[in-house]
Amino acid sequence: MREDSRFRQLQQAIDAQDIDALMLRLPENVLLATRYWVQLGGLGLVLIPRKGEGALLVPDYEEPEASERWDGPIRTFSLTLSGPPPSVAIESSLRQLAGQYGPLRKVGFEGGFESVAPPCHAAEPNAISASSQQLFRAALGTDHLVDCTEILEALRAKKTPDETEQLRVTNEIAMFGLEAFKELAEAGRTEAEIAALVEAAIQTKGHGYRGARTVRAYAQVWSGPDTSVGWWAFRSRARTVEQNDLVMIELATVADGYWSDHTRTVVAGRPTDRQRQAFAATKTAQDAAIRNCTAGATGGEVDAAARAAFSAAGFQQFPHHTGHGVGFRYHETRPMLVPDGKHRLVNGMILAVEPGLYEADFGGFRWEDDVLVTDSGGVRLADTKYGLD
Amino acid sequence: MREDSRFRQLQQAIDAQDIDALMLRLPENVLLATRYWVQLGGLGLVLIPRKGEGALLVPDYEEPEASERWDGPIRTFSLTLSGPPPSVAIESSLRQLAGQYGPLRKVGFEGGFESVAPPCHAAEPNAISASSQQLFRAALGTDHLVDCTEILEALRAKKTPDETEQLRVTNEIAMFGLEAFKELAEAGRTEAEIAALVEAAIQTKGHGYRGARTVRAYAQVWSGPDTSVGWWAFRSRARTVEQNDLVMIELATVADGYWSDHTRTVVAGRPTDRQRQAFAATKTAQDAAIRNCTAGATGGEVDAAARAAFSAAGFQQFPHHTGHGVGFRYHETRPMLVPDGKHRLVNGMILAVEPGLYEADFGGFRWEDDVLVTDSGGVRLADTKYGLD
Repeated sequence: MREDSRFRQLQQAIDAQDIDALMLRLPENVLLATRYWVQLGGLGLVLIPRKGEGALLVPDYEEPEASERWDGPIRTFSLTLSGPPPSVAIESSLRQLAGQYGPLRKVGFEGGFESVAPPCHAAEPNAISASSQQLFRAALGTDHLVDCTEILEALRAKKTPDETEQLRVTNEIAMFGLEAFKELAEAGRTEAEIAALVEAAIQTKGHGYRGARTVRAYAQVWSGPDTSVGWWAFRSRARTVEQNDLVMIELATVADGYWSDHTRTVVAGRPTDRQRQAFAATKTAQDAAIRNCTAGATGGEVDAAARAAFSAAGFQQFPHHTGHGVGFRYHETRPMLVPDGKHRLVNGMILAVEPGLYEADFGGFRWEDDVLVTDSGGVRLADTKYGLD
Repeated sequence: MREDSRFRQLQQAIDAQDIDALMLRLPENVLLATRYWVQLGGLGLVLIPRKGEGALLVPDYEEPEASERWDGPIRTFSLTLSGPPPSVAIESSLRQLAGQYGPLRKVGFEGGFESVAPPCHAAEPNAISASSQQLFRAALGTDHLVDCTEILEALRAKKTPDETEQLRVTNEIAMFGLEAFKELAEAGRTEAEIAALVEAAIQTKGHGYRGARTVRAYAQVWSGPDTSVGWWAFRSRARTVEQNDLVMIELATVADGYWSDHTRTVVAGRPTDRQRQAFAATKTAQDAAIRNCTAGATGGEVDAAARAAFSAAGFQQFPHHTGHGVGFRYHETRPMLVPDGKHRLVNGMILAVEPGLYEADFGGFRWEDDVLVTDSGGVRLADTKYGLD
């Protein structure tokens, strides 16, 4: 295992805080430590001791695939109807693993993850509840659990070259959907239908693309004058798109656990001059923000660049953030690109940059891409070739 | 508010345990108490005092829709870039609400939910982490939080007539997908494509169906001899279905927060005689299990009925449960239909019944429907009209 691997980074971080071991059970953090995206939430766990080797615990049938993704030790447990229930099988396996270390008095866990990324089987994500905490206490023989959310989120903000490449794959897969959106956003289709077919394009073309194993997309499409409130959460409706409507898509894509975040806005027909101006202002604002995504800049500086561009074009300010970290989840907690944001960008961060423009009775425009922070500004991981029409 | 409403049921349950108030923040339990499915996980909360009125807290823009779903009091908070951050806005709103009651010394919360159902925006579910617990302590002025998972899961197992009707809508919407599956499961398509198009059919036809507001589906398709391991979690692949392959779909559907669970197995071409026998045995086993879903039966009795049918047909036993509760989540914790299962069925429970048959080098067969428990056996909430071919 390389000394700059995530596993070693996590070991160094807990060692520095005098924590004996770190227990991971959220799919996004199991992915961080091992590159493996678990199928069913809760059935993949990682134990990271402060020194030496740890292990990934998975059901025996997942071992072949997990070993293709991670080069560290893997322990397995069996899930059979005649054997012990899963909770007992996992506890027994974890206790046996823990037994090979000295006493684990102070154990870190994912105590503060209020948002969680779904596993492969996305209909039923898992959380770290009292039940997981009881498991860790029992199997590791300690009453001292400490919340390591801060350690994890700080490390996650800066992606490794390998993770950046994984996120590039996700972004390229997302483009299948955004290109399909451009074709599908036409009068006569419902918002729900457009969203569903964008997701279908991504899942159909994404599986197998550059080795991607499991791909899923979450699209929301909004149309007409109501796009002016497209800055707060919106959901596809049964509304039929009318000729010359604005159509906006908000899109999450995940490939093997790595997430991207995109938005596009197009006109289902012929844009008006003012729509073209609004679109140009939005693109200019996004370009300005991305140009400012340099190592050393603060989130506030990137945000200010976007707002200055809108002001210069004569449009009002947008009521949401300019962007956020992305990758291990659809929205990561840092860095935030917000007014006066203090988070400082470093090379290797991946940011979703999404300035927008919203006017009642006119509509909303937002354009969002994921960029890699470099010394000379943000670099899009993928892009589409179209504009407003 | 009716005395048999879920809100009153929850009040009675916490009162009986001398708990002063219950805080709900998981979308599935906010739905339970109010019938409202929140858009973004964490931005909908319910405070239920042991006596009197409680309230649903949502962002101001969600108030119109929430009030169409719930007849109780609604409090709102604003999410603006110039105002306090969401966490502060929510805490302030919750503190103000709590102030209208006497001291809330002992407060129940969702401490043991290890699996969580996603909200409308399914890409980023929420959990009850240290952060929520800190919010409850601060806003309600107490250090005494007690885990009320058992209260919630016990109440959830038996659905109200209104919930049953909501689940019937979800099941009917799921049929759009299962009928599409029958057409799509043909040689030349990949598993991923079939799954994606089934999801698209459900989302396109589901939005607006009998008033459904937000619909999503999660399909997994598996094909060929590998269906013999389709009893543990599987995921759609880029594999192309070949002529005469078995094709199996596992399908979760959610409409406005109410979940269904289905499986179908068909042949992409012409079944062999032995495949027909296996299919007939599976259908017979499912019918036997459903006939035994009577009020008063145990989960073990239902499970035994399915296994006896397979034995009588000369097939081996399947290595998974016969079924489980379903509705507020894809899989609820009770009742479980397993060998020697002790959970006792009562009228109004909704169960996913899914016996299967798996043989190496031959394939897997599973057929799953959701049924309502009655005095005279289970009644399917919806059904398809096709068989194996």
